[in-house]
Amino acid sequence: MIKIDFKNIFACPSAGVSEAKWRALGKDLPRLIKQLKTRGQGFHSVIDDAKTAGEIIKFAKAQRGKFESLVVLGIGGSALGLLAISQALNNIYHNEAGARGKRTPKLYVLDNIDPALIRETEEQLNLAKTLFIVISKSGTTAETVSQYLYFRKKIAQKKLLIKKHFVFITDAKTGWLRQVANAEKISAFSIPNNIGGRWSVLTPVGLLPAALMGIDIQKILASARQGRSSIFLANFSANLAWQMASAQYLLYHQGRSINVLMPYAQHLWRLADWYRQLLAESIGKVKNRRGEQVNVGITPVTALGVTDQHSQLQLYSEGPEDKLIIFVRVSEAGKKISIPLLTKTEVEFSFLRGVSFNKLFDVEYQGTAAALTKNNRPNFTINIKRVDEQTLGELFMLFEGAVAFLGELFNVDAFNQPGVELSKKMTRDLLKNS
Amino acid sequence: MIKIDFKNIFACPSAGVSEAKWRALGKDLPRLIKQLKTRGQGFHSVIDDAKTAGEIIKFAKAQRGKFESLVVLGIGGSALGLLAISQALNNIYHNEAGARGKRTPKLYVLDNIDPALIRETEEQLNLAKTLFIVISKSGTTAETVSQYLYFRKKIAQKKLLIKKHFVFITDAKTGWLRQVANAEKISAFSIPNNIGGRWSVLTPVGLLPAALMGIDIQKILASARQGRSSIFLANFSANLAWQMASAQYLLYHQGRSINVLMPYAQHLWRLADWYRQLLAESIGKVKNRRGEQVNVGITPVTALGVTDQHSQLQLYSEGPEDKLIIFVRVSEAGKKISIPLLTKTEVEFSFLRGVSFNKLFDVEYQGTAAALTKNNRPNFTINIKRVDEQTLGELFMLFEGAVAFLGELFNVDAFNQPGVELSKKMTRDLLKNS
Repeated sequence: MIKIDFKNIFACPSAGVSEAKWRALGKDLPRLIKQLKTRGQGFHSVIDDAKTAGEIIKFAKAQRGKFESLVVLGIGGSALGLLAISQALNNIYHNEAGARGKRTPKLYVLDNIDPALIRETEEQLNLAKTLFIVISKSGTTAETVSQYLYFRKKIAQKKLLIKKHFVFITDAKTGWLRQVANAEKISAFSIPNNIGGRWSVLTPVGLLPAALMGIDIQKILASARQGRSSIFLANFSANLAWQMASAQYLLYHQGRSINVLMPYAQHLWRLADWYRQLLAESIGKVKNRRGEQVNVGITPVTALGVTDQHSQLQLYSEGPEDKLIIFVRVSEAGKKISIPLLTKTEVEFSFLRGVSFNKLFDVEYQGTAAALTKNNRPNFTINIKRVDEQTLGELFMLFEGAVAFLGELFNVDAFNQPGVELSKKMTRDLLKNS
Repeated sequence: MIKIDFKNIFACPSAGVSEAKWRALGKDLPRLIKQLKTRGQGFHSVIDDAKTAGEIIKFAKAQRGKFESLVVLGIGGSALGLLAISQALNNIYHNEAGARGKRTPKLYVLDNIDPALIRETEEQLNLAKTLFIVISKSGTTAETVSQYLYFRKKIAQKKLLIKKHFVFITDAKTGWLRQVANAEKISAFSIPNNIGGRWSVLTPVGLLPAALMGIDIQKILASARQGRSSIFLANFSANLAWQMASAQYLLYHQGRSINVLMPYAQHLWRLADWYRQLLAESIGKVKNRRGEQVNVGITPVTALGVTDQHSQLQLYSEGPEDKLIIFVRVSEAGKKISIPLLTKTEVEFSFLRGVSFNKLFDVEYQGTAAALTKNNRPNFTINIKRVDEQTLGELFMLFEGAVAFLGELFNVDAFNQPGVELSKKMTRDLLKNS
């Protein structure tokens, strides 16, 4: 069960958001819940799709033991969610640990087309033992289709069966990948029509790779349902997603247009990366829903505790007053590891006596949050018990719910991304004219 | 040889920085070069230290073949530079590739104290075949000292020799690590007194781990000297570091307070991370050199081309006009990899016909830069030929020179970090009182 502690926002007078002001905005909650429901988005209903979950698990079981490596061909929303799941629930050194005889396949995510990445990834693969997961909502993403064509040829050259080495995740009906799947009877899972790429982590996009690595996706879905239960409650105190969004919104209008997501958990920095896309693409919009030019957008920044205390904290503490810091704190970080003190010469480290890494890690979070607050830098903390399937689904729903509410608060369409089309068009034009 | 193309800044009228204005600021260049020289900083002179380079190479040769793994215990400036070097010059899958029989040791960088990281790293290690590199300028960094104490005990428990399995990099005279090195005759390299952590990549901090992985540090140093040669030229056209800094500075005063560093090179995203610390800590300051409260700071954001076109470009194109995008473009990205087109059904991808991944990658950069410019989003491009030892040193000096000039332009001390002390003090107090 997630808890959020907002008090360090109100303890920063210059941030300009009092608890009363924040609670008062709650009057809009019932109206905005209604409004959000009219959007017809599926990010919160797809987690009830037991049929697809069952098919994913069945497919994963059938592949068990066949593959040493999974290669995801996907970019943006087709990569960041599954990376977040993998990093949260697998060993930090998953691919290396796998090489030592563990049973789950290694994971390679080709979310770029740098030739060096393609070449060096290919060198790692035994194609006969590789399953390619091709992910594109539209079925036409140029980078992903190119990679598919490339590895398809490699598989064919090895006289291996395309059908055995590829699985697609794409729209149920439209797009080139769906046509290929139909024509060649390649296994394919669907991304529901009403879920965009960056909202798709709890569809086959995130769940199929997870299941193939032996992760219990039913637990993730159950915890997501748990998290979802409060999103549509028109009750300020119960609705964490609303509380978070309304704090972000009010602070934005006080000049805090940068949101730093700083988990104190090595296993969660990819989750921060997933959130970075969700927040950036959903709220960064030139026009609001009335067609007026607004150029709004919260700039997400990812940071990692304690690591970035030694890289970014100086700026956060002393620089422009343009940031809100969002911490994620894990109360049970696993087995205690003690810090030994060996000799008398360490008297200057006496403050570490009897302290574990677990405690030092958590106290550094406390010291950092307190110091930022003292410097009038607003921050709040998302508290979870541990990083596991049972909290991950809840976190996904919290972040998705909060970003959806931000869309309603800013009155922008949080579910499209019109601003990337110009670059795609210019790229195509440059290729045609070259 | 690096070239920078600034024209997309001047092609964005609403960014408010004309070429004339930018060139006019060059009148301050001679004065600020003089001023910078009075700071007595060593980041630009340490690259002449042939003696230390020789000692590093000698030490690395003596270790050859002895170790399977290098573990760096270091955080912030003691981690980011060596990670940048390793990622730029090693295989992207260095540790996995190493497992397949390559001769250079694997690299683990413990730049956090999350117990999960410590535990999972330890599981990867054969301690008898592990060399620990303990890096702390002050010799008193609590996180690093704790990790040292922990692994020292592990090594001792295995009846292995401390002297054989540890090497220190710290201040030549002061600090606890130096005392231990002297008392126990542990090999130790020095960080010059006039070089702070984030400026230390071309000291033993970055060079020793590099040399231990078989990287040619003489080439890096030679290219750094090449890059340095222009930093102190009071000639606008020849001084790339100045050109870069003055563009960043002028745009900051037009509201572009976020700088996105977006290399189109998978091998350079860790370099962007290194730069992120350098820029954030150096310029993010509450007070200027006259003691006046200024709260200045450029917020660095790292992004990766083409990956983040599918994650952040929407925000950069349509969101608030608060960003400058800095691209790094690599003109020779290695051996061509063609995109095969297989069937008639791919007519919608005809724009890919005859195109290589190399070309697509570069054209996507062009399309993105052009689209941003068209949307009045200022950007400039650092052009390099390839990612190798010969460009890496130049890049380090370019970025360091530019940040040093930014310090002079903003009139802040770019070489200290007073803002992190409060959090450290509060952490210590919390531990004492608990």
